[in-house]
Amino acid sequence: MTPAPAPAGTTAPATSTAPATDTAHGTAVPLRPRNDPSAARRFALSARTTKGAGPRTEDVPDWLDARAEAHHFRVEPIPFDRLDGWSFEDGTGNLVHRSGRFFTIEGLHVTRDEGPFREWRQPVIDQPEVGILGILVKEFDGVLHCLMQAKMEPGNPNLLQLSPTVQATRSNYTKVHGGAAVRYLEHFTDARPGQVVADVLQSEHGAWFLRKSNRNMIVETTEDVPLGDDFCWLTLGQLGELLRHDNVVNMDARTVLACAPIERDEDSALHSDTELRSWITAERSRHDVRVRRIPLADTDGWERGPHSIDRPDGRYFRVMAVSVQAASREVTSWTQPLVQPLGLGVTALLTRRFSGVPHVLVHARVEGGFLDTIELAPTVQCTPENYTSLTGADRPPFLDLVLGADPGQVRYEAVHSEEGGRFYHAESRYLIMDVDEEQAPADPPPGYRWVTPGQLSSLVRHGHYVNVQARSLLACLNTLAAPC
Amino acid sequence: MTPAPAPAGTTAPATSTAPATDTAHGTAVPLRPRNDPSAARRFALSARTTKGAGPRTEDVPDWLDARAEAHHFRVEPIPFDRLDGWSFEDGTGNLVHRSGRFFTIEGLHVTRDEGPFREWRQPVIDQPEVGILGILVKEFDGVLHCLMQAKMEPGNPNLLQLSPTVQATRSNYTKVHGGAAVRYLEHFTDARPGQVVADVLQSEHGAWFLRKSNRNMIVETTEDVPLGDDFCWLTLGQLGELLRHDNVVNMDARTVLACAPIERDEDSALHSDTELRSWITAERSRHDVRVRRIPLADTDGWERGPHSIDRPDGRYFRVMAVSVQAASREVTSWTQPLVQPLGLGVTALLTRRFSGVPHVLVHARVEGGFLDTIELAPTVQCTPENYTSLTGADRPPFLDLVLGADPGQVRYEAVHSEEGGRFYHAESRYLIMDVDEEQAPADPPPGYRWVTPGQLSSLVRHGHYVNVQARSLLACLNTLAAPC
Repeated sequence: MTPAPAPAGTTAPATSTAPATDTAHGTAVPLRPRNDPSAARRFALSARTTKGAGPRTEDVPDWLDARAEAHHFRVEPIPFDRLDGWSFEDGTGNLVHRSGRFFTIEGLHVTRDEGPFREWRQPVIDQPEVGILGILVKEFDGVLHCLMQAKMEPGNPNLLQLSPTVQATRSNYTKVHGGAAVRYLEHFTDARPGQVVADVLQSEHGAWFLRKSNRNMIVETTEDVPLGDDFCWLTLGQLGELLRHDNVVNMDARTVLACAPIERDEDSALHSDTELRSWITAERSRHDVRVRRIPLADTDGWERGPHSIDRPDGRYFRVMAVSVQAASREVTSWTQPLVQPLGLGVTALLTRRFSGVPHVLVHARVEGGFLDTIELAPTVQCTPENYTSLTGADRPPFLDLVLGADPGQVRYEAVHSEEGGRFYHAESRYLIMDVDEEQAPADPPPGYRWVTPGQLSSLVRHGHYVNVQARSLLACLNTLAAPC
Repeated sequence: MTPAPAPAGTTAPATSTAPATDTAHGTAVPLRPRNDPSAARRFALSARTTKGAGPRTEDVPDWLDARAEAHHFRVEPIPFDRLDGWSFEDGTGNLVHRSGRFFTIEGLHVTRDEGPFREWRQPVIDQPEVGILGILVKEFDGVLHCLMQAKMEPGNPNLLQLSPTVQATRSNYTKVHGGAAVRYLEHFTDARPGQVVADVLQSEHGAWFLRKSNRNMIVETTEDVPLGDDFCWLTLGQLGELLRHDNVVNMDARTVLACAPIERDEDSALHSDTELRSWITAERSRHDVRVRRIPLADTDGWERGPHSIDRPDGRYFRVMAVSVQAASREVTSWTQPLVQPLGLGVTALLTRRFSGVPHVLVHARVEGGFLDTIELAPTVQCTPENYTSLTGADRPPFLDLVLGADPGQVRYEAVHSEEGGRFYHAESRYLIMDVDEEQAPADPPPGYRWVTPGQLSSLVRHGHYVNVQARSLLACLNTLAAPC
């Protein structure tokens, strides 16, 4: 392995070194190019590279198992009265931590003007503080590698998955719980100009979180980086291979990988970028969605028992609690509430080529917890069991097409779980599926639109356009887990 | 005047005409270029053109006066008990309309972790429905012209100002009040692909509205457009000349003009676009701002009298009511609440050239009603009277520099008022001022950053980046009211 040359665009910021003197034509401070296409080329090269400077791809699952054995993780469901530091607040019934930090479980009242469900109340996670999900990247032998962590999260069905270099809430890294410092954090909090490749606030699950977002960052370094026992360097292409396995690459890693700039040979699309933004604006404007916080005690239809808050009809999700024993986390044991979605989800993106250019079919989806009404979601995103009583036009569009898919049409399929720090065994089948005009026309139903992967990449430079499930699937496109 | 040729990019959408047939390389549906730079060139040409196909610029103020005389507008403050259809709700004390539509005056409780004011309660306007602010544009003699309306708004100090072609809340255009149809509305609601130049949800005043946004649209037509008595065609350059007058171009017109694409010769900047977005993300993440709705009755420090809700110290604003007599509006008379800011505001953008490239100094400003914590505001945005008791570091940065400006440094100055449909005589001095390194260094204080006009134009393609006051000043740059 040879030291990589300094990548383009990582020179020191002009403002810190050059003298600022007024001249006839203004102040002589060197400028930087507004846009640098070299990052997108270098990430595309990393996606095409499946032999890297770190472990072989096929050895990563065993390495994860070994890391699990090296620690002694134990997670078990507990009744609410065994939670330490958490309690149901008098009056509101909200589930809160005594520090006032971390997160709370409150209630949400949502009304909307269309669809089979026009009004509901539900528990919701309120976590106003913004965390950092950051992947540190570095060139080895001229190819960008991502520093990935084998991280335990109590809600993961298999406990350990590959996570970003840093995955920390503000409570974590400001040490509300008095634990150890977050390793590699300074690369993200103290990044210098030219080192930041992506840095954007992205939403998380709008069905379960109230206006939650996390800071998704990719930062490049040319420094020596000491490698911790739970860390390894992998190319984007290796991460693509691992994304074809069930439950190996965690949600936080997937959403950050979705934000990687990727060069694509694609100047044309069914709709121009201006038209696409206009359609999103129209979708945001046409929905009349009213969202109000309510006390958890006022979530009619939900019942609080000793072990869980759930619905008598067994639908949607339950709020429960776990105790965690761990050696490798910043603290060694704790208890916490988790949300457990009920039933295996289906999260599918339909894909077609138009005049040779790949397109995917996105859905402008309303979720009660979104900051701004709708975000672009996969074509299908639901838990089929919640819809068994619905027929005809009330069935989610394209769901039955996906459930009855011909295996030859399925370009990508794997089971992934959602954030194991908040969700317990929240699994979904992620699919990318080739379709034709008869199955999904070029002019789709209202609320759906064909967009190119490049258009999605342009949108994820900004927050709150592409939801977390669609970002998981975009990560599969970016890493060539699902070439299209 | 000759009919203009069809502008580039206005051909019918491919999907509506071409047969969609699968081929070996995918479906043969013609594609569109993702980006079309010709619109930005044509808007730049319109900005350089000050003689148009409609009225001469110098005749527009007289034309506005004539339109005012043709109608018989009368606006007078009234006590709350003369409001028709509006009342203070039992229990909450919220000021509401009996239809449940239009808007309500509620309360807001804000806490934040820095600045001289860490916690406050205030009345706030809650208007969840999204309105349309739309300018129709058309080429005459090869130059784009904007269809502007002489529109009365009860809060305008001079009642009539130039407004967008369409300026309508959803309650207006779905006719909750049973009035006449909104003229030219169909150009915006039924715009075809290729006609939309800009279409984005932009925030309004975060100090007075709770998460309010309006749809800012620019739509191009090649059709014949019958010209109403209260309408005229003006080039961007003419609007720039009129922006140098006090209270002629209304806020709604200014925010839409800010969204016009403008070609600028500018590939470099002090900070790359990625760094700029990263800085915005960091500013959003570092602030801990908690905003909760509260009943209007719980806004401690505010007192409700027969004529107004205000503070004993006379600061900030008051809530009051007016009756309106008008012939040219969709309905001929009505009463409504308005918010009256107290004191003349100062809204100023500092500007410098670095290596010949113009930059402006923006402020990442927290306002309680913003959807997402901060937006980019002008360098100075305040009502000086609210800060007379503060000294030293608690004074708004750069305020004293602007208040003591040497006239030779002032590149632009005019008094403009904010939305006259919600605000009563809400006037501010808008300034653009040249400064040097000593007055405003290339490396400014935390929360401030030098950006180029082109970077602001890139950001206003998306919502919630640039606040309404900064958009007013960007409109002055776009129309060359203030060349820089």
